[in-house]
Parts: sequence; structure tokens; C-alpha cells
Amino acid sequence: MKKTTTKLKIRYSETDQMGVVHHGNYAQFFEIGRLDWINKLGISYKKMESEGVLLPVLSLEVNFIKSAYYDDEIVVHTYLIEKPTAKIKFEYEIYNSSNELITTAKTELVFVSKKNNKPIRCPNYFLERI
Amino acid sequence: MKKTTTKLKIRYSETDQMGVVHHGNYAQFFEIGRLDWINKLGISYKKMESEGVLLPVLSLEVNFIKSAYYDDEIVVHTYLIEKPTAKIKFEYEIYNSSNELITTAKTELVFVSKKNNKPIRCPNYFLERI
Amino acid sequence: MKKTTTKLKIRYSETDQMGVVHHGNYAQFFEIGRLDWINKLGISYKKMESEGVLLPVLSLEVNFIKSAYYDDEIVVHTYLIEKPTAKIKFEYEIYNSSNELITTAKTELVFVSKKNNKPIRCPNYFLERI
Amino acid sequence: MKKTTTKLKIRYSETDQMGVVHHGNYAQFFEIGRLDWINKLGISYKKMESEGVLLPVLSLEVNFIKSAYYDDEIVVHTYLIEKPTAKIKFEYEIYNSSNELITTAKTELVFVSKKNNKPIRCPNYFLERI
Repeated sequence: MKKTTTKLKIRYSETDQMGVVHHGNYAQFFEIGRLDWINKLGISYKKMESEGVLLPVLSLEVNFIKSAYYDDEIVVHTYLIEKPTAKIKFEYEIYNSSNELITTAKTELVFVSKKNNKPIRCPNYFLERI
Repeated sequence: MKKTTTKLKIRYSETDQMGVVHHGNYAQFFEIGRLDWINKLGISYKKMESEGVLLPVLSLEVNFIKSAYYDDEIVVHTYLIEKPTAKIKFEYEIYNSSNELITTAKTELVFVSKKNNKPIRCPNYFLERI
Repeated sequence: MKKTTTKLKIRYSETDQMGVVHHGNYAQFFEIGRLDWINKLGISYKKMESEGVLLPVLSLEVNFIKSAYYDDEIVVHTYLIEKPTAKIKFEYEIYNSSNELITTAKTELVFVSKKNNKPIRCPNYFLERI
Repeated sequence: MKKTTTKLKIRYSETDQMGVVHHGNYAQFFEIGRLDWINKLGISYKKMESEGVLLPVLSLEVNFIKSAYYDDEIVVHTYLIEKPTAKIKFEYEIYNSSNELITTAKTELVFVSKKNNKPIRCPNYFLERI
């Protein structure tokens, strides 16, 4: 299925006193990759949210293989794993500028109605574009 | 006028590769001090916001005197500077556990109606408690 | 094995535009729980690090069950899962103030020498206290 | 004197429950602008730091004029204000994609030797490039 790549530059504020990117920041990188994936599908996540469809995270799994450093240019690869239902699953790989795999991850999210906070099926306009 | 003190413990994730707390995190510390000041006045900021009164920040001034380190216990002193109108001004001092002054700051905030995003006067129940 | 509990209050800055704590902040909560677990063992993680033993995260798994909100008081329960070798595994449960389980998580970390960045066995003074 | 512009895209995680970028994140935006200014001067800040010259922040002043929102493309304009001595002063303007000025700021930083943590004069290779 569809795959996208998103470039990011590591910020100074993302490092910690070990001299590497703090592991807690990677959830942001996957989110940026995932929202970029959705936007590249031709869907504005911003608009989808303002129309009442939220996409909160149900689970997150990350494997940290190598460190990332201040000023590194990293690339987030985002993959859709299967046809979404009420849930949507992504996998991620992050590569550094030497093309080394530094992190892999999986997330599961759920389509939710803003009105009543209940799960809903993946919108048709979303399914049609996959 | 009223002054409060709020204790905080520095988180590992708040450090950067210089080995000290990243300067960008202090805005959070002042916010925690300020919201604690409001809560100690007997007003729930959470409730105030849910009732439609927001309090965004207009300006922030910080002087960084000494560094803070992972695991430090710091104390945020929060002062109200003058009677609030549509605006409310706080000053802050942060001390480390050796009682050294490490940071001073000022913020100016504005009471805003959630409905139309316009400035409003400080609520009466707020003024009465000062 | 040993279990500790750590209280935290949700910060305003930890919320996102869904009105709940952004999922990316939970890695910080687990880290605070884990470092508190180590400190309550009678070991200063700060000192351990300054003596050249680092403890980076290898993997992180999180299940998000319920949302947390600004001003919530949450409790992080941290468990050691098995006797550490070069690796150390923790599990976590976070409860809100209504004592509802809101998040579960697992992390695997590795003891590393600061000098050469190589894995090392869990220090004896650490093992003796478990 | 020299001026640079740096483009940034607002991250979802940078919003708070008011639905706008949390004011605490702007310090990161100015830092990104400032480090980009230095890099565009032909100096690697990363290398400068690894060679023992640090540049901590002494003071920060921010005026928040308009809000920024998730997915906004903002532009940070960074200006050097005067010839650096041991201190270096920058000013910043942030514009949104409608070219509206949303934030102005000033920072003062100091060149410091990593060895003894003492202020030092701005390196010659830095002055020569200005």
C-alpha cells in the first residue's frame, strides 16, 4: 500500500544530556510522518478534524536502534499496513543521512466522532483514495 | 499582593546536550507557578476555561542567571504585580535547592472570551479574591 | 519484585488541541516513574550517570486506554519484570484520580558504558538492592 | 546586518487545548532561526560546540501578537542587532502564511568556554564572517 517519506531536521531542543535525541520525541516524528501521509493522500487532516473526525492513538510500539543527533537530517518512512476499518495501522522506519535505519515503529489509531467520542468507520472519501 | 510558591522537580527530558535544562522549558515552569497561584486563590483555572474565559500570554520576559540540572528541586515564586484589568501581570523568581536565584521573569496575559476571542475585564469573582 | 508509585499533575502545556494530554508526553511519565523507582532503590541515577553508566531506552510499547486531562492527578505504577542483566525491563500502569487505569506500557533499557558506548552488565550495587 | 529567514511547519504536538500553538514552543522557533542564521554564515554550530564553544541564552523577550495553528507554515526572520562581543544579540519576527506578523522577540546569548564555563570573546572566525 501507499508509502510516504518525510524529511526532518533534528532540533537542538530535542537533545538531552546524553547528547542524543531524547526517546520521548520520536512519537512526534511518527505523528509528523503519519499526518504527512494523510495530507499526501489529498486529505487535509486539519479539515477532517474541524469537520468532527478525530484520530487519537490507541497504541505505539517503538524500537530504538541507533541514536539521532542535533542537526541530523532524518527521513521518516510511513507505511499503511492494511485497509482501515474503524482502526488504522501505520508502520514507520526512520533513516539518518548515512541511510542507516535508526528506529522502527508501529501505531494503531481509531477514527472517533468529535460529537460523542465514539469510534466510527473510516470515512468513505478516505477509503476511496487508498 | 499575593505571592505563592510551587515546587517542581527537573525531569530528565527537560535537559539538553549542554547538560542543563533547555531554556525553552522555563515558560512551562512559569505557567505552572501562575496556574498554581490562581488555584490557590480558590479559583479553578480549568473551570474558568470551561466556562469560556481564556487567559493567553501576551508577553514573556526571562532572565537566565544560573543553570538548573536534572533531578534539581526548584521553587517557583509567583507574584501578582498590580490589580488586573483586562490584563494581568505576574512576576516570577525561581530558586534552586541551595536557595540561589536562578531565573527571573515577567508575563502579561489577557482575559479573553472564548465565544468571540475578544478581551474582557477580569471576572468579578477573581477580583474579589485578590 | 519491587514496585513504586509516583504522583504527577498534568501540565497545561501537555495538552493538545483535542483537549487531552498529547500521547507523545507519556514517554516522559514512564521515565519519571522509572527514575523514581531507581532513586527509591537507594541509587541516585544522576550519580550513576556521572560515574559513566548510561541507561538508554531500547524499546517502548504503550497502550492508551483513556485520556488524561489538564490538572488531573495521575499515578504512575512502575514494576521491575525480571532480574536485570545488561538489559532491564519495566512495566507501567497509569491511573487517574478516579482510580481508572488509563495507560499501560513496557520499556526495555540497556546499561551502557559512557566511555565506549558498549553494553555492560547491571552494576553489582544495583543488583544487590533488588 | 545579516538577516536570514527560516520556514517551519507547525506540528500537531505544538498545539494546546486552546487550539493554538502553546506559547512555550516559540523559544524553540527562535532557536531554530538563530542556529540557521549561524549555519548560513558558513559556521557549523554543531562543530563550534564540539570544539568547546557554547552559546547559552541569557535573556529572552517575546511579544505574542497573533496565534499560530496546526499545519500553518510560518517564517522566522532572524536579525543580528550589533557586532557581537562576549555577548550576541538577535531579534526575531515570525510571519504566518498570510504574511501577518504574529510574534516578535529578542534574545541575548553569551559565548562560553566548555572547559571552565567562563564567558569568552566571540571567536575571530565568527566575527570575520559578519
